[in-house]
Amino acid sequence: MKKWYEENLDTDIIVSSRIRLARNYKKYPFSVRLSSSGAEKMIEETKRILLEGNTILSKEFEYIPVFGRNPIDKRALMESHVISPELVKKTIPCGVLLKNDESISIMINEEDHIRIQSVALGMNMSKAWDLADKIDNVLEESIEYAFNEKLGYLTSCPTNVGTGMRASYMMHLPALEWSGQLQNILYAIGKLGITVRGLYGEGTQAEGSLYQISNQITLGQSEKEIIENLNNIALQIAEQEKQIREQILKEKKEVLRDKIYRSYGTLRYARMLTTKEAMTLLSDIKMGFDMGILGEARPMISFYEFIMYVQPAILQKRVGTDLSSQDRDMQRAEFVRSQFER
Amino acid sequence: MKKWYEENLDTDIIVSSRIRLARNYKKYPFSVRLSSSGAEKMIEETKRILLEGNTILSKEFEYIPVFGRNPIDKRALMESHVISPELVKKTIPCGVLLKNDESISIMINEEDHIRIQSVALGMNMSKAWDLADKIDNVLEESIEYAFNEKLGYLTSCPTNVGTGMRASYMMHLPALEWSGQLQNILYAIGKLGITVRGLYGEGTQAEGSLYQISNQITLGQSEKEIIENLNNIALQIAEQEKQIREQILKEKKEVLRDKIYRSYGTLRYARMLTTKEAMTLLSDIKMGFDMGILGEARPMISFYEFIMYVQPAILQKRVGTDLSSQDRDMQRAEFVRSQFER
Repeated sequence: MKKWYEENLDTDIIVSSRIRLARNYKKYPFSVRLSSSGAEKMIEETKRILLEGNTILSKEFEYIPVFGRNPIDKRALMESHVISPELVKKTIPCGVLLKNDESISIMINEEDHIRIQSVALGMNMSKAWDLADKIDNVLEESIEYAFNEKLGYLTSCPTNVGTGMRASYMMHLPALEWSGQLQNILYAIGKLGITVRGLYGEGTQAEGSLYQISNQITLGQSEKEIIENLNNIALQIAEQEKQIREQILKEKKEVLRDKIYRSYGTLRYARMLTTKEAMTLLSDIKMGFDMGILGEARPMISFYEFIMYVQPAILQKRVGTDLSSQDRDMQRAEFVRSQFER
Repeated sequence: MKKWYEENLDTDIIVSSRIRLARNYKKYPFSVRLSSSGAEKMIEETKRILLEGNTILSKEFEYIPVFGRNPIDKRALMESHVISPELVKKTIPCGVLLKNDESISIMINEEDHIRIQSVALGMNMSKAWDLADKIDNVLEESIEYAFNEKLGYLTSCPTNVGTGMRASYMMHLPALEWSGQLQNILYAIGKLGITVRGLYGEGTQAEGSLYQISNQITLGQSEKEIIENLNNIALQIAEQEKQIREQILKEKKEVLRDKIYRSYGTLRYARMLTTKEAMTLLSDIKMGFDMGILGEARPMISFYEFIMYVQPAILQKRVGTDLSSQDRDMQRAEFVRSQFER
């Protein structure tokens, strides 16, 4: 089964679009108050709705238990953005229903009972929205959600009450980062109800100049309004990133070219690469390709796939978990080299 | 005409062998006391002997005036090891008789009236000696040298009296340099009458881990004894360099491989290179090829040629002297890239 990120689409500054809907059963207490046996019952009920219904969904989804799984497996799921760092840490029964192309994952018993996540390549929030909304409708046919006429969907944390929706764009912002202007922008958009997070969401670091831009407000606006507001701001940020890139092209083209070509050379020849360095180098060459100043062959996989496959747990799942850190760095470098045709 | 360094010979730790003979006319005062007109007369006389004689030499040699020449030309001759840094700085008539393959150069009116220099690739001092000795004999047929039965050849500086000979090996010593053991060795060989200088001889820096190892003593030993002593010590140093390389291979093979492959990648892809960085990277890949741990195609020119062609004045002579420093670094990088087949 082809994964959603294997689509042959070259993304530019906006790398991917993501929707997350927080939902809770009315009949079960919120996750923090749910007993282990209650959690198991809730999980089973949700699985049954999706996997034993008579829709096409039952064939497309698979349930992956997360609690009790080994740490590498859990981390690999997180690195693939299938589950959240929060779910990795959970010490009560929890899991995820995953669509075969990985475009939709439904975390069960994370902060809320149900968290529907959907993703699409590039700036394509309407596609991500459609995917999540469809699942939401299917579930709502069988589940009575915790819902209040005035407030909307009730959630474990008050910041999600209302739509329960978080829409986010993964944006590649190397020029804003280098120029030091990113901080100002982050400060400004905070006032507009938009927040910026690292590569894996809340509490995580940006790597490879990748940032998640998402709505902070879930209450008092419709899903459509929230997405429109986010779209406007994401486009403005992308525009500023472009302007700074053009400024660098005007003022320091050769220095930038040199930097980018060196990163390309290092990716093609290094024998050891840490995750962090690989991310930085891949970010450099992505910008080089996107700006048209790197005239070499593109790697054989997309940027999105590439940054996923250099992550530590995904790498260990492929090459083995009994390797030393140096051996992992060697395996990572070997994998990276293999993505460039000789 | 093929130059001596274009020979298709892969050298290892000992890159080249060089002989220099210091000679003076009996009838002219030493250079420091020689008037301008006296210098011109002496130069003409020497040129005539070589260029107007009826030997093959008259066709093989060409006279290049150095005093009064533009600085880039002078520096380029120095970077090719055809003349010494000392001759570049001279403010009285001086020049060089150069053999068409550049294996022999005869500086006229450097510190001494005549300095015969000869060079051969790799560890081949006997070849260098034969070249210099042959020229010395030809000149001696026509010139009465300043010579003392007891002391030998008389020279401008007392440190050269006797044989007037300096034999030197250009050695590539990256492992000794990195390990910090080079200092100890230099200290030890100083006591054995051997001295170490930088890439362009006395008072110059080592670049690309290249060092000139030569005899300090010219008096009280025959040429043969001096060369034998130097050979012993050069072989010992080469052996120590090899041992440290093997030790690194045992203890840090992968780190070294990574370093060397990165240098290779940078040489192949960088868009700007300073002389210093180019020398360092070329030194890295030479060691990689010599140790058999760099499994890529060798550059199309030899290491010796390569390090010559990245030097600033030689580069400027080829691409133009009106370039900015950044443009020169770009041209250098372009030249470097062109030496690797795609």
